[in-house]
Amino acid sequence: MSKDNSIGIIGSGSWATALAKILTDNGQHIHWWIRNEDTIRHMQLRHHNKHYLTSVYFDTSLLSLSNSIQAVAEACDKLVLAVPSAFLLDVLQQLPPGALAHKKIVSAIKGLVPGENILINEYLEQHFQLPAAQYFTITGPCHAEEVANEKLSYLTFSGTHLEGAQAIADMFTGSYLQTIVNTDMIGVQLAAVLKNIYALGAGIAHGLEYGDNFLSVYITNCFREMQTFLEQYESQKAERLGTEPMVHNYSASAYLGDLLVTCYSLHSRNRTFGNMIGKGYSVKAAQLELNMIAEGYYACRSIFEMNKTIGAYMPIAQAVYTILWQQVHPAEAFMALEKGFI
Amino acid sequence: MSKDNSIGIIGSGSWATALAKILTDNGQHIHWWIRNEDTIRHMQLRHHNKHYLTSVYFDTSLLSLSNSIQAVAEACDKLVLAVPSAFLLDVLQQLPPGALAHKKIVSAIKGLVPGENILINEYLEQHFQLPAAQYFTITGPCHAEEVANEKLSYLTFSGTHLEGAQAIADMFTGSYLQTIVNTDMIGVQLAAVLKNIYALGAGIAHGLEYGDNFLSVYITNCFREMQTFLEQYESQKAERLGTEPMVHNYSASAYLGDLLVTCYSLHSRNRTFGNMIGKGYSVKAAQLELNMIAEGYYACRSIFEMNKTIGAYMPIAQAVYTILWQQVHPAEAFMALEKGFI
Repeated sequence: MSKDNSIGIIGSGSWATALAKILTDNGQHIHWWIRNEDTIRHMQLRHHNKHYLTSVYFDTSLLSLSNSIQAVAEACDKLVLAVPSAFLLDVLQQLPPGALAHKKIVSAIKGLVPGENILINEYLEQHFQLPAAQYFTITGPCHAEEVANEKLSYLTFSGTHLEGAQAIADMFTGSYLQTIVNTDMIGVQLAAVLKNIYALGAGIAHGLEYGDNFLSVYITNCFREMQTFLEQYESQKAERLGTEPMVHNYSASAYLGDLLVTCYSLHSRNRTFGNMIGKGYSVKAAQLELNMIAEGYYACRSIFEMNKTIGAYMPIAQAVYTILWQQVHPAEAFMALEKGFI
Repeated sequence: MSKDNSIGIIGSGSWATALAKILTDNGQHIHWWIRNEDTIRHMQLRHHNKHYLTSVYFDTSLLSLSNSIQAVAEACDKLVLAVPSAFLLDVLQQLPPGALAHKKIVSAIKGLVPGENILINEYLEQHFQLPAAQYFTITGPCHAEEVANEKLSYLTFSGTHLEGAQAIADMFTGSYLQTIVNTDMIGVQLAAVLKNIYALGAGIAHGLEYGDNFLSVYITNCFREMQTFLEQYESQKAERLGTEPMVHNYSASAYLGDLLVTCYSLHSRNRTFGNMIGKGYSVKAAQLELNMIAEGYYACRSIFEMNKTIGAYMPIAQAVYTILWQQVHPAEAFMALEKGFI
């Protein structure tokens, strides 16, 4: 039976673990879906996640752990989705169609629904009839590793209504965690997808031995390209709906800040992955070496597909796509980009 | 006697040396004012600057070296000013009032005129009757060290007319150097001053052990604060002159790009200086240790003075000013900033 202020976390990667830490550090009890029974046992016995952010110890009296997503969903009125976008469908398909009725869904996923190239809220609306008012997002700039170290970080909470977003944000606000709220739910999700592509490209540039001067120009051009895509996206949507196009505050943390931390931080998996590609590793070899695929890898294909309709001029995202998915040589793709930067 | 396409460089620090390299790598002969006779002798004998970018060797057949600024000014129709802003008046005061008549002055200085808190072009207009059309600027993002290593870099050339700026830019364009031109001469100068303040603050934050998450939020807020100042500056100017306020493209390399490279790069002297302040060094101790004072140190006082008239809300620049000039404790000043970031 779900009850007020009960919150569940779906996923046990580093981002899910960081969010669990933030909530439990505030004394919040959480229901936590962890796929692997062995990880659950280890958490109960040793009080930490054996695979991710292993230095973070939990007060297990605040944790209800379960490997049944349905049980966690039933127990909570708020569910935080924090799995990599590639695994989202596997997870959601375990839930019956009515499972999310009257629940608040908080997406901490930085990606689109794989294959369908739509936003998470669009998928939830189609498959679970989730109304937009029950959907919220958590966006960065925030690397999980720094949450583990309790370094002051900022998270942005977005929803269709400010009060609803504020209520969720309040559960997370704490001594090392500041929250920002807005109603710009769609824009921040797309920015979070795009920035992973650009960070992957930043890694490629670094791997190709471009320097700091170039990187700053590259990121500046990414920032403009992100705006181009979003403006075109909003104007098409406005035309379709007969409304005014939504205007985003690109100079906010969820846009520029998230782009910066993902492109510059050595904690960034997308940057690390790209760096290996720039140094000549194949996608497969980089994946094996790092034991993961960066979100930007899927994101550049999703945005490439989406942009067939949007039609925005995106030479950088396009270059990253052709490097990763069409075996274009990184040095050649970047040489072509250089000339167009301002 | 000055002749067409003769160009002089005033200064022998790392930025002046980088600009000399760029020009001579293009086969351009330069007149080069170097204050210190010993540095000139060393350059003639050993073909490099003994103090800065020592790995850069010059074809001395392309160099006319002199420690007389008047002689260099007489020999050239274009003069590149590349001394630290703190020494600018010492240098210019060696020139008679008519010395710059009919010459093009290209400022590569990232600062305001000390004490007067006005832009270089305003000073040159007042003291040398230099018309705006004869004034140009070179702005980044560009650290000299990467020019020395021939890492691809971008420079922005600004002037009242695009063709004039383009003609100067063409002398610099080369295999590792791309150029961008615009007519936004005032905005880019102010951005170049502001970014040094923010980079110094980024260094302080790093010294205080804030992490990458915070830094990205800090820089995002600096980017917005820079816009606030420039918008207020332009609207006051427009009101005074009865014109429309100039609109700047903040998402261009000379604004955002320069802010990024100065805040993030380990080549940044402002960041290094700030880092020592954040770690508890006094201004004097940091200055002795690094054997220099960062531009941002003077810039924050100049902008503080200028902003008495402009009146823009600048909590970050203000915090850096109070830390450096009023002995406010860095940790306290940053704690006060944290709450206001979005």
